[in-house]
Amino acid sequence: MDIGRHSAETLFLPIEVSDEYDKAPRSKVHRGLATDTGLRWSGVDVREYKSDDSRFSEITRQVLLGSREGLSIETRYFEIAAGGYSSLERHEHTHAVVVIRGRGVVLIDSAVHEIAAPDCVFVAPRSLHQFHAGENEALGFLCIVQCDRDRPCPATPSEVEALRSNPATRAWVKT
Amino acid sequence: MDIGRHSAETLFLPIEVSDEYDKAPRSKVHRGLATDTGLRWSGVDVREYKSDDSRFSEITRQVLLGSREGLSIETRYFEIAAGGYSSLERHEHTHAVVVIRGRGVVLIDSAVHEIAAPDCVFVAPRSLHQFHAGENEALGFLCIVQCDRDRPCPATPSEVEALRSNPATRAWVKT
Repeated sequence: MDIGRHSAETLFLPIEVSDEYDKAPRSKVHRGLATDTGLRWSGVDVREYKSDDSRFSEITRQVLLGSREGLSIETRYFEIAAGGYSSLERHEHTHAVVVIRGRGVVLIDSAVHEIAAPDCVFVAPRSLHQFHAGENEALGFLCIVQCDRDRPCPATPSEVEALRSNPATRAWVKT
Repeated sequence: MDIGRHSAETLFLPIEVSDEYDKAPRSKVHRGLATDTGLRWSGVDVREYKSDDSRFSEITRQVLLGSREGLSIETRYFEIAAGGYSSLERHEHTHAVVVIRGRGVVLIDSAVHEIAAPDCVFVAPRSLHQFHAGENEALGFLCIVQCDRDRPCPATPSEVEALRSNPATRAWVKT
């Protein structure tokens, strides 16, 4: 991707304004940039992946569009640094994931798959899942969710034990 | 993006099956591939952009995830060939757009902006919009919408006239 040309402002675009629309979200462009520490967008804060005590490593989270724009859908970008991984967890809500940078591995239930841009991953309700970046390469992906969603639950001890007993998954279980 | 290594199968991942979940959508990976005619995903049909008589040119549409997976959100990928463009239209529903390939231009209301991967565009309710690929480069973007949404309306003749009278927009109005 050729993503070096932009300056870092968010461009708010004009819309017709009337009383009715005064508080409506406005169309806009968030400029994307490739930086040494991953993709960044103008007007989008880089956040911690999680603020609770789940086990995870080396991830940034950016909400590109969501409740701030009055939407019921969040379009988020996660970037896992080389060697890092997300929490091993499940939830009722689904994930629609499109990898847009780098490569890595996803553990879903009892399967492990290499993934790379532009693979698309569907995480169904209640599927245990964990994303891992490559050993020497970051993994960056869009992850689309409903704003109104349940909180993730960690894998149970017996599930972790089963995944660690399975030769296919044991190398990819981080808790 | 390094996207040449995959074979073109969709991988369905095992999940625990019970009576309750028999009809539940399953987690899966759609493998992405770069081809001479644009990005493609295993298990995803390439469709016409529209089947009505709207004016548009040289676009493919792929629904990566949506109602087939029981979702209320559609994650679509559009690729506009070099020199092509989408319909000039508006609707009540929003678009969350992330450019993942190439470059082009978006007209939104009375503004025109160059866009390139990985820019993110928010199209607010009722904003007139039209996407254009570069003259010599395709534009590929994810566009996230609610499955349940209103139908697009074309720009009115007076709106088209106003855009054609505006030096900033006149080159980017295709109807």
